[in-house]
Amino acid sequence: MLKLYYAAHSCALATHIVLEEVGADYSTVRIDFASGQQRSPEYLEVNPKGRVPALATDRGILTETPAMLAFVAQSFPAAKLAPMDDPFAFAEVQAFNSYLCSSLHVAHAHRMRGHRWVDADDAAAIAAMQRKVPESVGAGFDLIERDMLKGPWVMGERYTICDPYLFTLAQWLEKDGVDPARIPRVIDHRRRMSERAGVRKAIAQELA
Amino acid sequence: MLKLYYAAHSCALATHIVLEEVGADYSTVRIDFASGQQRSPEYLEVNPKGRVPALATDRGILTETPAMLAFVAQSFPAAKLAPMDDPFAFAEVQAFNSYLCSSLHVAHAHRMRGHRWVDADDAAAIAAMQRKVPESVGAGFDLIERDMLKGPWVMGERYTICDPYLFTLAQWLEKDGVDPARIPRVIDHRRRMSERAGVRKAIAQELA
Repeated sequence: MLKLYYAAHSCALATHIVLEEVGADYSTVRIDFASGQQRSPEYLEVNPKGRVPALATDRGILTETPAMLAFVAQSFPAAKLAPMDDPFAFAEVQAFNSYLCSSLHVAHAHRMRGHRWVDADDAAAIAAMQRKVPESVGAGFDLIERDMLKGPWVMGERYTICDPYLFTLAQWLEKDGVDPARIPRVIDHRRRMSERAGVRKAIAQELA
Repeated sequence: MLKLYYAAHSCALATHIVLEEVGADYSTVRIDFASGQQRSPEYLEVNPKGRVPALATDRGILTETPAMLAFVAQSFPAAKLAPMDDPFAFAEVQAFNSYLCSSLHVAHAHRMRGHRWVDADDAAAIAAMQRKVPESVGAGFDLIERDMLKGPWVMGERYTICDPYLFTLAQWLEKDGVDPARIPRVIDHRRRMSERAGVRKAIAQELA
């Protein structure tokens, strides 16, 4: 059985949704960031990076959202959530998810996790990073709106593992200071995603 | 035919090495960062992100190193550079490459590309980021040394698309202020990689 380690309001939601939507037999373990549980010796045994998500499988632990999403898609091929048999189409899926992971999520992280990249007690530098977030996250969403979101789903007619991931990162954009009015297609995608049964169930479970 | 857009000393080298090692029929286009060519209208037509690498294929443009590496591996299955038929093993490959892309490369980028995350004219914040790079990049390499590099190759006995990517990012560690003595296994991996014919050829071509 699969076991997902997550924190509320984190990017683990993307994998949670996909596990729900493929009908996987899985359980969840909540990691409490407020008490620093992600850096506890017990959790570092699971994931030495001290981050979520992590996915325990029969063969070991997996980390990194793009890898976990493709793993679930490939393990449940009947759900057809990634075009594994088409190298170009699969690479497009991977490129989208890699952009979310390495650019959009990273830009967002400069609001709350600036201590990763400057000394934690450098209040001026931390504040300088936070001031830039509306622009850097906004530019990422502009690019998605204009060049990457094909519609109605990210990859076009076919719903893929890109959709729950975009939805997950789009949860944060208002707090990041991005005006939703500038990205109507992203907002419409977020609304349609929020109506899916698996999405509702995953969110309800995380907030319970 | 495949066409790789690259800049010298960039992460495009990873894909360049893999194209060389699989024996692909490919050409290269050098993008000159010194003159800002990555933001020229012509290049933005290729890659609206204004970054390298990009890979032109018969079906369109691909970006993002993890996606491009898996694409080349999947397109040239005889080279056996990724265990595409084993979801868990492939996810381990992807998790490694995703970590390089979203954590290690991002930490490194705070030395030269801090303007992505603070105002470009905020010299104090830019300098604060640069001061943290030896620690943040060093921590990433420590994790790889201790927990991720199985040896002799990243994934163990089998050489994969993880190896050229690790080698590429390991080019920069001295300039990032990381003492090579603390990561002997990474340094040994880098040395063995540098002796491969395809690696030598890709580097020579980029520096010609």
